[in-house]
Amino acid sequence: MEIYFCTGNKHKLKEYKAILEVAGIKVKKVSAKLIEIQANKLEDVAKEKVKTAYEKIKKPVFVEDAGLFIEALNGFPGVYSAYVFKTIGNQGILKLLNGIKNRKAIFKAVIAFVDENHKIHFFKGCCKGKIAYSIRGNFGFGFDPIFIPKGYNKTFAEDVELKNKISHRKRAIEKFVNFLKRKYLSKS
Amino acid sequence: MEIYFCTGNKHKLKEYKAILEVAGIKVKKVSAKLIEIQANKLEDVAKEKVKTAYEKIKKPVFVEDAGLFIEALNGFPGVYSAYVFKTIGNQGILKLLNGIKNRKAIFKAVIAFVDENHKIHFFKGCCKGKIAYSIRGNFGFGFDPIFIPKGYNKTFAEDVELKNKISHRKRAIEKFVNFLKRKYLSKS
Repeated sequence: MEIYFCTGNKHKLKEYKAILEVAGIKVKKVSAKLIEIQANKLEDVAKEKVKTAYEKIKKPVFVEDAGLFIEALNGFPGVYSAYVFKTIGNQGILKLLNGIKNRKAIFKAVIAFVDENHKIHFFKGCCKGKIAYSIRGNFGFGFDPIFIPKGYNKTFAEDVELKNKISHRKRAIEKFVNFLKRKYLSKS
Repeated sequence: MEIYFCTGNKHKLKEYKAILEVAGIKVKKVSAKLIEIQANKLEDVAKEKVKTAYEKIKKPVFVEDAGLFIEALNGFPGVYSAYVFKTIGNQGILKLLNGIKNRKAIFKAVIAFVDENHKIHFFKGCCKGKIAYSIRGNFGFGFDPIFIPKGYNKTFAEDVELKNKISHRKRAIEKFVNFLKRKYLSKS
């Protein structure tokens, strides 16, 4: 089967293709200027985006929103992770956590999918971890070089295989794939 | 005359009332849950908000969006100033600028007003300045305690009269008032 993914982020597209194609699902990229709202929850951002995407292409389509939520910074950068990465970057996050012992952080991803009956389905994935004391590794993108998943010693950017196995994105995709299989593949 | 202001920020409301009532314009607050979009420009955020506000109340109405743009941080916190203030606060900004000599910053405000013909008008105000090395003063709100306007030594939070005289908000309101006077008051 084929599925439409509306995104402007080539790194995300690559990660989705890698994981979904293993499950026999072909990802087709759709480009559309989507409205991203300012909200506290990823679900709210994803919901508005996917509604616009559906209105434009009139076919089942999904979007994804992700963010890094740092406990000691009251959830910052959260839903604004992309903007914060673009402006102050990993170096900025490390500076903000300078002298702070609580390094707990959580990566969250939310997939919003509109089906052929205009119904929106959400699939969430989380990955707990901590913020490193320095920027480490060259894989992945965004805050990967400063995020160490719980139970490991490497950042996501140091071990891309680990990332694709246990990341927030992987976990959201897993739920999404199970849903797609139940809904579509079992009928064929 | 009376004019509707759609805002959830009581501090802004207070500043608008103080300045507009001197010009003989009464401000009435309207509460409505407005969609704030994620965009790089204040104008884009204000435009979407005021359209929603107008659809809800069906009367001429204005909204305002403001932000602090710090040169050394690539414009951060910019259009996301409210969220950034709520999470990392003034202390976070000072930490990010630790060891950075370029303290240049600019406060920007954009008023978007929909008139009775559904036309949107924008009024912009800027105030150049620099970021202080510590949090100073108790007046104002948000980033006022770390912003020192160009040509002065006090922060906005140390001198509220100065703020109401030269702030980005004051400058945007001045343009707005002149427009309102030309458009409405001259006919009465």
